[in-house]
Amino acid sequence: MMQQVADILSNIEKLIAELPLQREPQGLYAPIGYSMQNGGKRIRPLLTVLACQMFDNQKTDDAYTPAIAWEMFHNFTLLHDDLMDNAPMRRGKPTVYTKWNANTAILSGDTMLVEAFRILHQTKSDNFSQIIELFTKTAEEVCEGQMFDMEFETRNNITESEYINMIRLKTSVLIGACLKTGALTGNATHNDAQLMYDFGINLGLAFQLRDDWLDTFGNAETFGKRIGGDIVSSKKTYLLVKLLQSASTADSEQITFWLNRKIFDEQEKISFITSMYKKYEIDRIGQAKVEEYGDKALQTLRQIGNNSKIDITQLQEISNKLLNRNK
Amino acid sequence: MMQQVADILSNIEKLIAELPLQREPQGLYAPIGYSMQNGGKRIRPLLTVLACQMFDNQKTDDAYTPAIAWEMFHNFTLLHDDLMDNAPMRRGKPTVYTKWNANTAILSGDTMLVEAFRILHQTKSDNFSQIIELFTKTAEEVCEGQMFDMEFETRNNITESEYINMIRLKTSVLIGACLKTGALTGNATHNDAQLMYDFGINLGLAFQLRDDWLDTFGNAETFGKRIGGDIVSSKKTYLLVKLLQSASTADSEQITFWLNRKIFDEQEKISFITSMYKKYEIDRIGQAKVEEYGDKALQTLRQIGNNSKIDITQLQEISNKLLNRNK
Repeated sequence: MMQQVADILSNIEKLIAELPLQREPQGLYAPIGYSMQNGGKRIRPLLTVLACQMFDNQKTDDAYTPAIAWEMFHNFTLLHDDLMDNAPMRRGKPTVYTKWNANTAILSGDTMLVEAFRILHQTKSDNFSQIIELFTKTAEEVCEGQMFDMEFETRNNITESEYINMIRLKTSVLIGACLKTGALTGNATHNDAQLMYDFGINLGLAFQLRDDWLDTFGNAETFGKRIGGDIVSSKKTYLLVKLLQSASTADSEQITFWLNRKIFDEQEKISFITSMYKKYEIDRIGQAKVEEYGDKALQTLRQIGNNSKIDITQLQEISNKLLNRNK
Repeated sequence: MMQQVADILSNIEKLIAELPLQREPQGLYAPIGYSMQNGGKRIRPLLTVLACQMFDNQKTDDAYTPAIAWEMFHNFTLLHDDLMDNAPMRRGKPTVYTKWNANTAILSGDTMLVEAFRILHQTKSDNFSQIIELFTKTAEEVCEGQMFDMEFETRNNITESEYINMIRLKTSVLIGACLKTGALTGNATHNDAQLMYDFGINLGLAFQLRDDWLDTFGNAETFGKRIGGDIVSSKKTYLLVKLLQSASTADSEQITFWLNRKIFDEQEKISFITSMYKKYEIDRIGQAKVEEYGDKALQTLRQIGNNSKIDITQLQEISNKLLNRNK
């Protein structure tokens, strides 16, 4: 029988709540429990389970183990990234290094990475060795993406392809790998498993580019974060990379001046950079790029459905929700 | 044919030099290469290979893969521990967070942990699943040991058994697991593999207790580090734990006064604490504990040799060298 999204999400929550984290030393394990219960949407494990079910709903239950491993890995990256980025809050709650301290954040994060592998190793699948290879390669790539992201902070000459490659590594390979893990657990053909990965890459790119766009052009009420945060912190987003590429020499000088200013009026900076985005049509270009990758993603998904005569409805609905489309 | 220790060590160096670390982003991988080439003695991978060879010298070549995984894991712990302990130097060279920065130390360390698993997963052995389970459990325990060690910094009432448990987790389980990994690769019986683990636990405890002892009572020329470093930093060593347990109330007050002082003459502190160690015979007690665990270790090793009629000479020699014994 097909499991519905709501049921899968409730199973995932239950499995996370049952993780053996009531252990000594509590100084090590309590921050892991806290991180895992941070109110995340569980998109990644959901994608793993849905992808498996799409290919073989007899195997759905086997997909939960690697799904939880992916969620543990994802939360490990958030824990260490928050420390590296000096982010004091996440989803309205203090981050681990704020609530405890930097050393706890390092060591509890390390333990989460080990735990992710411990859970992964319990996966029951004919494709076990492919799954652990995919997991390990992806984990490595996510670290590479975070390093590129940190390196970009001090550079003003990032090309579009460098930027896309960075978000591919930092965000999209994880989405692709969660989907492919599910496909492999469901014994998809090699070709379908690869298409699921490609679907995830494009979905992840569209999702991240949309996040960049919303941070400047979104609706404060529905976005949940303050509008213009990326502009205030001079974050290298897709919009900024495109703007620095398109602007005239005179405008570039002004933009760089604002990016480098240490003391400034935040609203003034947001207004100026936003006006530049509009002048060079970066809002439209950014939105078009989201559409482009979103279309590619959904096209790939339909291709899998047609190839193998299987039902893609659940993944299609989730994707549309993630991309906030009406169809 | 039996491989000699010198040949094994040179094979290990060659495999480490061949690791694929000439990759982008260099900011991520160069610190890993630097960490792996830090002049370590490669004791852990050596133990893995020797343990395998002892049980089946046809399998020796298969032991190098998990051996390198263990060495990568060990160097990951050093990298993150140095950051957490604010240790600027290791073996006469700046540590990664000093040479690069804290974020690089975090992220390159994370990548080393992933790399350790990537290498481990390539192990060829009938006992593959036992080996990855042992690796993961041990990695978790080493993190627990480091957390206990950090927690002990702010406590003055640590019991002997708490201290022994901490060094067991932080140091000994890794030695035990390296040896057991080799035994499993060499298809040792379940019983022998477990005895190899126990041998490693006792060897590791003796080694760590000896290190504590040498830091205060060693010979500056042969020890390689400055004598009294642990006393200066008020580090909770076996000696200090035993002293705080044995001292009279009056002496305890004086000792605690010295431990808590922020500004002091280092030589004066070393002289005072050392005199207390002598007064309460802590030097003798410490040395006796080293002997006790060392004896247990070698006894267990001989038991394996007798059980299975196999040659323990290589491991016996290495152990005696580690414990600096003449026989």
